[in-house]
Parts: sequence; structure tokens; C-alpha cells
Amino acid sequence: MHELLQNNDLDMHVISIDQFSQAQLKQIFDQADEFQKQLANKDSRLKLSQKHAGKQVCTLFYEPSTRTRLSFEAAAQNLGMGVVSTESAGQFSSAAKGETIEDTMNVLNQYGFDAIIIRHSETGAVKKAANVSKTPVVNAGDGKGEHPTQALLDAFTIRKEFERLDNLKVVIGGDLANGRTAKSLAKLLSLYPNNHLVFVSIAELRITQDIKDLLKRSGTSYEETSDLDKALTNADVVYWTRLQKERLANPEDFDSAGFNLTKKSIQSLPKTAIIMHPLPRVDEIAVEIDDDPRAKYFQQAGNGLYIRMALLDKIASQN
Amino acid sequence: MHELLQNNDLDMHVISIDQFSQAQLKQIFDQADEFQKQLANKDSRLKLSQKHAGKQVCTLFYEPSTRTRLSFEAAAQNLGMGVVSTESAGQFSSAAKGETIEDTMNVLNQYGFDAIIIRHSETGAVKKAANVSKTPVVNAGDGKGEHPTQALLDAFTIRKEFERLDNLKVVIGGDLANGRTAKSLAKLLSLYPNNHLVFVSIAELRITQDIKDLLKRSGTSYEETSDLDKALTNADVVYWTRLQKERLANPEDFDSAGFNLTKKSIQSLPKTAIIMHPLPRVDEIAVEIDDDPRAKYFQQAGNGLYIRMALLDKIASQN
Amino acid sequence: MHELLQNNDLDMHVISIDQFSQAQLKQIFDQADEFQKQLANKDSRLKLSQKHAGKQVCTLFYEPSTRTRLSFEAAAQNLGMGVVSTESAGQFSSAAKGETIEDTMNVLNQYGFDAIIIRHSETGAVKKAANVSKTPVVNAGDGKGEHPTQALLDAFTIRKEFERLDNLKVVIGGDLANGRTAKSLAKLLSLYPNNHLVFVSIAELRITQDIKDLLKRSGTSYEETSDLDKALTNADVVYWTRLQKERLANPEDFDSAGFNLTKKSIQSLPKTAIIMHPLPRVDEIAVEIDDDPRAKYFQQAGNGLYIRMALLDKIASQN
Repeated sequence: MHELLQNNDLDMHVISIDQFSQAQLKQIFDQADEFQKQLANKDSRLKLSQKHAGKQVCTLFYEPSTRTRLSFEAAAQNLGMGVVSTESAGQFSSAAKGETIEDTMNVLNQYGFDAIIIRHSETGAVKKAANVSKTPVVNAGDGKGEHPTQALLDAFTIRKEFERLDNLKVVIGGDLANGRTAKSLAKLLSLYPNNHLVFVSIAELRITQDIKDLLKRSGTSYEETSDLDKALTNADVVYWTRLQKERLANPEDFDSAGFNLTKKSIQSLPKTAIIMHPLPRVDEIAVEIDDDPRAKYFQQAGNGLYIRMALLDKIASQN
Repeated sequence: MHELLQNNDLDMHVISIDQFSQAQLKQIFDQADEFQKQLANKDSRLKLSQKHAGKQVCTLFYEPSTRTRLSFEAAAQNLGMGVVSTESAGQFSSAAKGETIEDTMNVLNQYGFDAIIIRHSETGAVKKAANVSKTPVVNAGDGKGEHPTQALLDAFTIRKEFERLDNLKVVIGGDLANGRTAKSLAKLLSLYPNNHLVFVSIAELRITQDIKDLLKRSGTSYEETSDLDKALTNADVVYWTRLQKERLANPEDFDSAGFNLTKKSIQSLPKTAIIMHPLPRVDEIAVEIDDDPRAKYFQQAGNGLYIRMALLDKIASQN
Repeated sequence: MHELLQNNDLDMHVISIDQFSQAQLKQIFDQADEFQKQLANKDSRLKLSQKHAGKQVCTLFYEPSTRTRLSFEAAAQNLGMGVVSTESAGQFSSAAKGETIEDTMNVLNQYGFDAIIIRHSETGAVKKAANVSKTPVVNAGDGKGEHPTQALLDAFTIRKEFERLDNLKVVIGGDLANGRTAKSLAKLLSLYPNNHLVFVSIAELRITQDIKDLLKRSGTSYEETSDLDKALTNADVVYWTRLQKERLANPEDFDSAGFNLTKKSIQSLPKTAIIMHPLPRVDEIAVEIDDDPRAKYFQQAGNGLYIRMALLDKIASQN
């Protein structure tokens, strides 16, 4: 079994991308595909909306992340589950009064929710919550830590386009040093054979050593380059990520290096490739690319709905 | 066809009061009346609450407007639709991260909502959103721009009381320079024959030239006056609006001019007239008038529920 | 009839613990027990979730209190009612624009809610709201005033453990001067015969004279002590409350006095006793006690769900 899978407690909580086996990923992706189909049909959509009637999820967001929250809530309601929601639990009076997240969970565990979906600004906070929770917890992002449903929807998007997750040339660019999505995608792709990863960034934002070590151990080939043209040649997937300019000494370096994607800069990209981005994007991908049939970042975001439905359905079906 | 109707895209989005024809208005008002009746009966209310089961709306409020949001959400739920909601998308992490409203819409379009109801502080922002949206957008107010459901509920309230929208003497007072509700009502009434509008305000807050021009072109008679007594004589409708005192050089001028409505100041108002206000009110209408049977401002607010139901039903019925 | 019951308008609003008779309390507690059972079974839970289909509640929270709001909303949804919600109506644009709570209620009354659940930072604000409301109002806490569902869930928790609310030795500690929960519990226990209350606190935080007077009038025996060991001996219930340290001159006094509950400090507490706390707790109860089978504070919080369901069911059943 892959080294990432030691912490396999999927039956209870969804905390980290590390906990999923290939078999489990396949099951989730198949279910997500199925839900997408059912939503497209009026009758099956209506039937689906009664599947988990009477059940409820709680979205507990300590920091706002409206997009993630809305898609989790839409996912729950598509399955017939009720939602109770807080969009800024940082203003949570109990937290403000000095309550630990463990106490908060101990209370919320009493309210009979079928799942508690948590977003937190502190790395590791959601794992702490899960450690004491008898109600299944889903990590909707914890600081610089994990955001497993994002990683799942990224992989799901690739599978949807190529019908496989192996034998792919994947170019990953942007903020590889700090962005959790780039790292999670690299991890996930290392589970599958014969992928080749190409990391493109400026010196300040290069992929970290822990990821390179992991790729080596899993036998996944990779390279780092500043030659975008060459990187895109024969690429299957271009996965670009957002620069948080406020964190950079010289944010213009990325653009100067030619790493912002434009119609011109992606000329060597094959017609069959796809362009992804976890969004929101700023300048890393020019708006002129949106109409390019290879641009899949909006569909990618939408795939989050089906992935979240698949996870919530799995959890709710246990009760 | 009336000059206001050039932009008739009601089939898709609800952005501006200008897009409605008389026939469409009649259809919406009739439906709103019908929903009001159905809600009043226990059995038909229950049945109605299943009409659009499985469908969902998203309320995307960039600035809080609790009353408008709650009534849209209550309207959606009365029709059986699920709601996902954000009450302060200004804190929206994506917007804060520099995302354009077009990108936000492109993402939300992927989540399968049947309608996206948007409130924004910037004039024109909702139209920008609608321009890229494949999901129907409903404008819940954009800055100093439009707030079409408010205009619809105002006209609906008059129709409910008089069974017509023509041949009325309508006195409009308050902040006519800045308030969008006074202007929208004037526009709407100009669609119907033989109305006479009387504008009452202090010099600083007089109705703007564009509205006067529009009334002229449509053949609607109007006058401006500072004689409240005379204005109210033979009036059918008194529509008063809120002064935003923080914007006024001398807010006490309005009161000194005798334009705050009190039992005493409305003595010349006929018994058959009605008093309206878009609310919230501050001092422009004294609380002592609330018990006057002519005071209809709270019912007016409530009529917003039926209007919003009629619009959401129309939109959801297209899917 | 007990002196507290003069204001018996339960048929309409739930404002104060004072309005409940013993018979009404019994009815609510029995119903709460029944709902707890129904939620534990998959089929009866599903059936329950359809009981008040088509009805709606509005949660109008002028200050955030996520826990209370979430449990009210979960309670409503468990009964099939829709929820529209605002978690910080202090940002409520209408309130910010100078609207009175009476006007807000007059508007919300038009939207057809079956109940309006209000949290407010000002003492008495919810009563003011109820005074003009034709829709039933439930007080979810108003400043230093009342929080009747907390008092009900406290009493319900004791009844659940002892099958009675009389003939109990109840030790109440913490901030007895300012905390509304300690006072409300004392009031409620004074309705039942042969209880003995023991108040434990530092000089700064002693129970107020009005409560002592009330206990005297009702014939309920009580004592004040600083001897925790003796207080806990033969106790049935220990009810501890949170210190708001920011309000205290010397917050460490409470700890120095030995009043923080620890494994060591509760040695004289009988095995059959229970330990309660309205939560959130800070240091007044050490985390090491959480595993003690007598610690019931998390279940106590959970009992709020059943109590709130019982109240909302009672209200919704009137329509």
C-alpha cells in the first residue's frame, strides 16, 4: 500500500487526501459522475433530492470561503439534506469567549448532525476537531494544511477529460512553495504509474523538498524548469495556481519570467490538453484564454459539487 | 411599445424595471395575488411548498440587506426551493482575493442553481453579472441603480388597493434626488394613462431632470410643489421616502418645511387614499400614523414576498 | 398560582422562564423526551422531518450566538420547517439605518413566518419585539435579561437524570451576580418543593438579593458558603457557570478560593450526582473531569435541541 495511506479512517472523517486508496478514489469519482448525470435530468434530480431527507449537515466556517461553503451546501441539499450554517464562526461567540474547538465539537456532536463540515484558518485545527468528534467531520480547508475536496475535484477533472490518472504529462505552475493545491495534486498523481510532473515557477516559489522526496519514493518522474514553451510541449494538463502577491518580494517577477498564461504564451500547448486552476485567479491566466476550449477551470470548480455530493452521500449512507 | 421596454430579456434575468411590459406586469401581479391566496390556506400552502422541490436558489449579497434577503429566501422556500445564502459576500474570500464578479458568476453557474439573487453596492454590478451568467440572475438592488422587485411590489400594492394603475393622483415625497424607489415608481406609473404625479420635497432633494423628461415623453402630467396640503387634496396615493440625513447639508429643512407626515399634516388627505413608504422610515412618517387605516407601508413590505414568489416561480418553471 | 406566573402568555410568545407553570413545564419536558426518542430511530426521524412541512421560522440574531442559533435551526428542520436566518442583524441595514425593532417586527410579521426567534444584546429588546408581533416570538437571549430555552434545558437535564425536580440538593457556583443561567435555575427550582440550594462564590460574585428574596417567599431553603467540600457532600446537582474574567477585578480569586472544579476538588461529590455547566466553560471546570460519568454538560447542551423542538412544535401546531 502507498505510504500516504497509513491514516486510513475514511469510514469516519474526511481530513486529508492522504487517506484515500486508489480503489476509494475510483469509487468516489464513479459516484460523482453518476450524480452529475442524475442532476442533469429533471426526474432523477427530484428523486435525488429526497434521498437523505430528514438528515442534516452543519457547515462550520471559522473563516469565510463562500464558494466552498455554497458548493457543500448545494451538494447537501441536492441530496435532500438540511443545512445549518455559519459563515464566520470566528465571530462565534463561544470561540470568542475562549472555548476550545474540542468543546465546540463536543457540543455540536449532541445536535444529531450527519456531518460537520469545517473550514478553519489554523493548520491542523480540523484534525483536532475530528479527533474528538463522534459525528463525521469533513475538512473544507485548514490554513496552509489540507483541502481534500479541492484535491479530489482536481483529480476528478483530469479523469473526466482523459479517462485515466496515469501516463500523463502534468505541468504545474504558480506558487508551488505555499499553495496547498499544487502539492496535493502532485501527491495524488504519485499514486498512479507513469506520470511525469513539470514544475514551473520563479526561484522564490519553487516546489518544496518534501514533495520532491515523495515523488522520488513513489517513482514518479518530475523536473523543474523555467522554459514554459518546452514544458507545455506534449503536456496533457496545465495546472496553474494563484500568486498571493502580498506575500511576494517582487510579484512582477512571475510575469517578467513569462509565466502568466496568455494566448501567446501557450502556443506550444497541444490541442488535446486542458488548462486548470483552483480559482480564484488573478493575472496568472489571462481572461482571453477563457474561450479556449482547453480552458477547464470553471468546469473544474463545478466538479466540486459532484465530488462533495459523493462524499456526503457516502457519509450519510452510513447512518 | 413604451420606450422603456427596449431591453426586454425577462425570459432570462430580472435586472431592471425597464424590461417589463404592461402585459408582463399584469401576469406577475396576478400570480402574486394567487400566491397570497394559496399561502393563506393551510392545504394549498403545503402543496405550494412542494411545487419546485429539488430546485435551489443562491442569494449572493455583497452587502447586507437582511429584509430583502429574508423575503427572497422565504419566497423560495414557500415554493419548495432550497436556499444557499451568503449575507456579506463583501467578505467573500474570492472577491477579497481580487476575483471579478464575472469569474464569480462563471463558478456559481456550475453549481446548478435555478436562480442567483444578487445584491451589490456598486451600480451596474448585477448587470455585469447577468451579462456572463447562464443561470438566471435577479437584481436585489445594486447601489444607486435598480431594485426592480421593490418597484414591482410598490406598483402591486397600488393595484391591490385601487384595482388599477391608471387614473391616479400620486404624491411622491422625500428624497427624490437620490432615492431609486421614487424614480422607479414614477417610471412605472408613466406606463399607464392618465396618472398625475405630484413631487414634494426641499430644493436639495428635487426629482431629477431625467425623470421629468421621461414623464413628458410618455405624456404623464406632473407638478412640483411645496404646498403639502394642496398636494394631498384628492390624492389617491402618498408615497413617502427616507431621507439619508448623513447626506444632507441641513436635514432639519425637510421637517421645517412641514414635509414629515403627521396626523396633523395629512388632514387634507382623502379617506380613500393610501400611504406608502419603502421602509425603513426614520422621521418622515410619524409612528402615530401607523394605526391610520390608510397606512399601508407594512403590508407594502409584505407584498414583496408575493412578488418575489411570482418572479422565482416564473424563473423556476422554465427549467 | 406561583408568583412568577402572572405573565402567562405562552400561547403566543416565549419570552421569559417566568411564564411557565409546572404543568406547562411537564408538558414541554415530556414532549422533548418524546422527540429525543423519535430522532434516535431512522424511520421516526424521517417522519418527524415532515411534520411541519411548508412552515418556516426566521432566526433574527442581532449578535452572533452560533451554538444557540444552530440548535434552533436544527430543531426547526428536524420538524420539517424551513429556516431563514441572519447571524448578525446588528449589521442589518435597516437597523443601521435607524429602524426601530418594532418596525422590523411589523415588516417580518408580513412574511408569514410561523415563529421569529430573536437574539439581542439589549435587555428587554425581545419583549419589545413581542409586544408588537402577531407572529410568535421566541427569546433566544436578550443581554443580561432572559434566555428561557437555556433555563428549560437546564431543568430538563436534571429531570432526565433524577426523574424529578423536587427534593434535590443543588450546588450553584461561579458568577452568581451576573450570570442569568444561575438565577433562572434558582427561580425554576423554587417552583418545586423541598429543594435546597447552595450558592458557592467569591464575595464579588455572590447571588443577588432579589433571588434570595424570591427563594424566601417560595419557601425554598438555601445557603451561601465558601466551603466547597461541605457544599458538594450529599449534593445531587452541581451547576457551575462561567466567569467573565474581563469583568472581574481579581479573576484569580475564584481559583485561589479553590472553586475551579478539578478531580481533586470534587472528591466529596456523591457518585450519583451530576455536574452541569451552561457552556462555554473556560477554567471553572477542568478538562480532566470531562470523562467523569457525572459530567453531563455536553449532554445538557444537546438537550437544548429537544427543548427547542418541543417549543417550536407547540408553536407551529397552533397554525
